[in-house]
Amino acid sequence: MRPKIYLFGDSITEESFSDGGWGSSLANHFSRTADVVLRGYSGYNTRWALKVKEKVFPPPQQSGGGDAPPAAVTVFFGANDASLPDRCSGFQHVPPDEYKQNLLSIVAFLKKQWPSTCIILITPPPIDEAARLLHPYVDNPSGLPERTNEAAGIYAKQCLAAAAECGRPSINLWEKMQQFPGWEKAYLRDGLHLTCNGNKFVFEEVVKRLKEEGISLENLPADLPLISEIDTDNPLKSFDN
Amino acid sequence: MRPKIYLFGDSITEESFSDGGWGSSLANHFSRTADVVLRGYSGYNTRWALKVKEKVFPPPQQSGGGDAPPAAVTVFFGANDASLPDRCSGFQHVPPDEYKQNLLSIVAFLKKQWPSTCIILITPPPIDEAARLLHPYVDNPSGLPERTNEAAGIYAKQCLAAAAECGRPSINLWEKMQQFPGWEKAYLRDGLHLTCNGNKFVFEEVVKRLKEEGISLENLPADLPLISEIDTDNPLKSFDN
Repeated sequence: MRPKIYLFGDSITEESFSDGGWGSSLANHFSRTADVVLRGYSGYNTRWALKVKEKVFPPPQQSGGGDAPPAAVTVFFGANDASLPDRCSGFQHVPPDEYKQNLLSIVAFLKKQWPSTCIILITPPPIDEAARLLHPYVDNPSGLPERTNEAAGIYAKQCLAAAAECGRPSINLWEKMQQFPGWEKAYLRDGLHLTCNGNKFVFEEVVKRLKEEGISLENLPADLPLISEIDTDNPLKSFDN
Repeated sequence: MRPKIYLFGDSITEESFSDGGWGSSLANHFSRTADVVLRGYSGYNTRWALKVKEKVFPPPQQSGGGDAPPAAVTVFFGANDASLPDRCSGFQHVPPDEYKQNLLSIVAFLKKQWPSTCIILITPPPIDEAARLLHPYVDNPSGLPERTNEAAGIYAKQCLAAAAECGRPSINLWEKMQQFPGWEKAYLRDGLHLTCNGNKFVFEEVVKRLKEEGISLENLPADLPLISEIDTDNPLKSFDN
């Protein structure tokens, strides 16, 4: 039985199996060692995530009972919580304090269900406001972006504070991405969602953090003998164990 | 609980979550409706697959007991079985008759475990022999390709015969790909494994066949409300059911 790695988040998670997406890159990386399971819900904020967590992660007795705890869960919300309350995506807004509390509640829920599972909190990415205006996904006659980079930064800080408070690893995407000159176009395709390079960035950060938590190709056993391990003179012998 | 779609096969399956791979495209296509589970084993032929099938698909009581049967399993072998016996990949060769019987045994095993699961047999792709010589994956001083297109065609026919005998849907990749002028370079990157276009071809064929079997976005319920279904005036109300 291969361990599972759940990806729980919003649209940046839901679309992570598109071409070059960070989710498919993870699945490819762990192709013989772990199952990467997609639980991305476009548009969701932490308030809605909290509301549906039991449906996303049913208790072991409901989901079959014998499933081993997942090796890891990435919790990647905040981009929608950070929508400004008085603009066109206001219905997705969640105040920063509540966002932090919601993250803590999600972690507590996962911890209760799976005490040994690695839970990684990922901050929202930075926002390129000019690009948001060019790529509105709802009618936005105001001429003002529905998200700002400053607001995303406040949520990133709350995410890190939540991770520190519950002693869990985190990835500060908001800060790390902005260290790269030209991050706006290099990493974001519409000021919010990831380009191929942005996906690569997230993939590499997640692999690095997982490795620090002991979840890596070096530590996980391969599922069945690799072709390089097959005895070419007597292949079937390789499967006797 | 989302239905699962298992991809069982050799390297063409194992690497199907690489950039633009047919597996990741399937996972993206079904991102809110089904879990695509990777069970690809590079270099494996049907003889080895038959030997490990209980480990790949443990009986329900061992895998948790409560797991619902998967919606579908793709069985995609033959590229290695078709390695010529007297050339550098001879240890992977399986005679055509045995290949067909092995496929039937794999289908019978899956049918016994999950009577209602859709099982799709996929033939090996065609072979571009010139490209195989340019991209040897083992030492090959003979100057002869380890696989030929003619041999792959014999295995494709056996695969179709097996599918007909057990009444299962099949995809004749070997024939369909060759209908496209320039298939050698368009669909194969090393005379055997898929290019981006080859992956797209396989993805579209699998989606089409699944749809014919009633497994499609139209028929599968989405996991949790879509953002377009959320009541923007009272979002939490959308999660009450």
